Amino acid sequence: MGGAGGPDAGPGLESRTGRPPPLGTAPEPVTTWNARRPKIVDTANTCGGPRELRVPATLRRHESETALSLTGTTLFGLQTFGGGLLTVDGEELGDALTQAHLVTEGAAAEAAGADAFGVGEHHRAELPTSAPDVILAGVAARTERILLTTAVTVLSTDDPVRAYERYATVDGISGGRVQPVLGRASFTEPFLLFGFDLAHYNELFEEKLALWTQAKREGALRFNGVHRAALNGERAFPASATPGGIVTWVGVGGSPESVVRAAKYNANLMMAGLGQTPDRIQRYFQLFRAAEKEFGQRPAMLGMTSNGFLADTMEEARDRAWETNRRLMESVARERGWGERTREHFEADAETGFSLVGTPEWAAQRIAEHVLALDVDRYDVNYGNMTATREEKLEQIRLWGEVVFPRVRELVAEARATAGGDAAPSGVSDSPAPEATGDVAPSGQQA
Amino acid sequence: MGGAGGPDAGPGLESRTGRPPPLGTAPEPVTTWNARRPKIVDTANTCGGPRELRVPATLRRHESETALSLTGTTLFGLQTFGGGLLTVDGEELGDALTQAHLVTEGAAAEAAGADAFGVGEHHRAELPTSAPDVILAGVAARTERILLTTAVTVLSTDDPVRAYERYATVDGISGGRVQPVLGRASFTEPFLLFGFDLAHYNELFEEKLALWTQAKREGALRFNGVHRAALNGERAFPASATPGGIVTWVGVGGSPESVVRAAKYNANLMMAGLGQTPDRIQRYFQLFRAAEKEFGQRPAMLGMTSNGFLADTMEEARDRAWETNRRLMESVARERGWGERTREHFEADAETGFSLVGTPEWAAQRIAEHVLALDVDRYDVNYGNMTATREEKLEQIRLWGEVVFPRVRELVAEARATAGGDAAPSGVSDSPAPEATGDVAPSGQQA
Repeated sequence: MGGAGGPDAGPGLESRTGRPPPLGTAPEPVTTWNARRPKIVDTANTCGGPRELRVPATLRRHESETALSLTGTTLFGLQTFGGGLLTVDGEELGDALTQAHLVTEGAAAEAAGADAFGVGEHHRAELPTSAPDVILAGVAARTERILLTTAVTVLSTDDPVRAYERYATVDGISGGRVQPVLGRASFTEPFLLFGFDLAHYNELFEEKLALWTQAKREGALRFNGVHRAALNGERAFPASATPGGIVTWVGVGGSPESVVRAAKYNANLMMAGLGQTPDRIQRYFQLFRAAEKEFGQRPAMLGMTSNGFLADTMEEARDRAWETNRRLMESVARERGWGERTREHFEADAETGFSLVGTPEWAAQRIAEHVLALDVDRYDVNYGNMTATREEKLEQIRLWGEVVFPRVRELVAEARATAGGDAAPSGVSDSPAPEATGDVAPSGQQA
Repeated sequence: MGGAGGPDAGPGLESRTGRPPPLGTAPEPVTTWNARRPKIVDTANTCGGPRELRVPATLRRHESETALSLTGTTLFGLQTFGGGLLTVDGEELGDALTQAHLVTEGAAAEAAGADAFGVGEHHRAELPTSAPDVILAGVAARTERILLTTAVTVLSTDDPVRAYERYATVDGISGGRVQPVLGRASFTEPFLLFGFDLAHYNELFEEKLALWTQAKREGALRFNGVHRAALNGERAFPASATPGGIVTWVGVGGSPESVVRAAKYNANLMMAGLGQTPDRIQRYFQLFRAAEKEFGQRPAMLGMTSNGFLADTMEEARDRAWETNRRLMESVARERGWGERTREHFEADAETGFSLVGTPEWAAQRIAEHVLALDVDRYDVNYGNMTATREEKLEQIRLWGEVVFPRVRELVAEARATAGGDAAPSGVSDSPAPEATGDVAPSGQQA
């Protein structure tokens, strides 16, 4: 690592001294609309091993710096965790058809004009999609242009060498379009299924991200770690289609350590909007840019995700979003001891953070507000965290790709033109406060 | 396991007493036309751990029984290890384009009328295709009918739970068309790359095949083994598209223990023809059927593989086969200390066993001879173990699918009609002795 002072060189976070960390402790990317902090994150925050990264205090000097996108443009993606398919009569169509339909959804996302299509990795009955790389290979074979991403790839419980080989294969098939988002997991299943200890939650990801980063160089591998056999010059195959190796993102939910780690390994940063506010996300981005400087890394891309559901009226959107996510929410709530999930909980969650449950115009105005405030390189919407019919899933994809994203581009261009061509963030608001968004006035008609 | 006496119940093979085993010790599936016994097999034969299967002496009673196909018909497949792509000027096009072209090749195989398309797993520069499941997902998305298989999936160095999840995903995408062939590996790379000890060559495969077989039932997993973390009721996802779980083959090169193991786990048996003769293969099949009875298993499918290269004349076929395989052969020979590989070695190898280097008519006659003698459920030809141009690979696929396989079906039907509708094996010959093939008289014009 170049640069002055790695994360282990500087003093620790304030949390080390008993005070809270500066940027809050919001959860890692989660898998329900109404996310509460998953238990797994508590484990990580309290049981981090000796290898856990600490943000050096020196970084806090840079927090006020502006964090701008790398590319100067925002790509809009659609992502899904692959919730179960239903017949129009509400019967479950089963895991296999859900997998097959994800390929159809990826092709539909390209046809609708989305810039990226992402699939999440889970190992549970309500979210039976465990191999996003395999799904993306199917999508690659049916598309020409769309970027192929994940939401997320659970690197902590995978073998980074094997994972790199699989994604390099997808990269080859797709002509260099794969951009996985690596993450730590928001459920506990993969730890039990693949035999990793949750107590090593943070350390596992650190070690595996380091090895992935080495594999990305596509040369002889040298490794001597705790959670995987040593490597003494062996090589992984195939080489990817991407000069410099696969474009890699790290998915972060709200841990400053994770932000700094992404910078350390020169990954692109994908922030989960869920449970966050625009100003908190901007502070994460600033931390990221500052950490990149400290590590002597080139600036990488910034991205964020929201969850959404579209309908003709705000009320209908809420109704359908609640219906289609209920099964998963109830299962997660039961498992995590949250007590019964009610419509009231759901309504309350939909009022806060980066939830995009509403009409296409309302969602477009809200995304434009986020893009103007945060100037991200990529903005992905999770459209498919739901149990629904084929037609409903495809209709959501069509609405986001054909209606919302073009309208967002229009709104952002108008706002920037009005501001005199200034592409910098126009201000940061805690949504949903439309008066703080500068030139973009979202209609904000909430049911 | 049902049935009277498992493999561990009976006395050991004669090899245990210092005498040779009854069915020879031909190598596991190998990756060059001119295969010599790979070192890895020596290791397995001499270093098998305490868990290694032994063929009970009682099984030898059944060796004379007839082994018939399960389905009564033969499907014809094409397989490849994904040797590098070249420009027409002989320049290498690189790993990524090789991966992308494999998807094109799979679609071409369906268009040409082949019944199956298979991809091998390797982790080396000359054979950079490490994730056949990912490639097959791409092929699945571009095809409707063709079975998707492997040649082989190196289960020994994979996690059976993760592997099952990946293939179940391909099964979902393809609507139930995936049929992996699980094997032990013919190169040493995956052992070094994934941190497994070659000394456990046999034991690794046994333990992993047992867990795969359990995962195939798609219920709660319970496992307590040596080479993988324990499982205590966890489940893998997604469920496959296939009732009863993914159709699973075990690839065997010439080890009677492997044949018995395949029967023990009720897998379908894919025998590598390379280095074998028809009568030896028939004896393996008889052993397999007898072992199935001993274990109380339902009869499974029988298959075999050959390597081939087609051209207008026998001489041209030999020339091109030598040219396109030379790079790989030389690398393997160097690595294994075989000394220099010459055209003379290659010619000698092409004279023996199941090599199908010649004209389409000659190859068709030879395959018909094999099918009549062995009555397999599937016959796969490796067409692509070569460094060649796109056009050459696609032309090979076209010739096998459009010319050779239909001609084989015709020859087999004619021969069976002449024999009075008798579908049983018409006799067993050590190829290339045409006088022993009954009603099919191969032209046998060797260059």
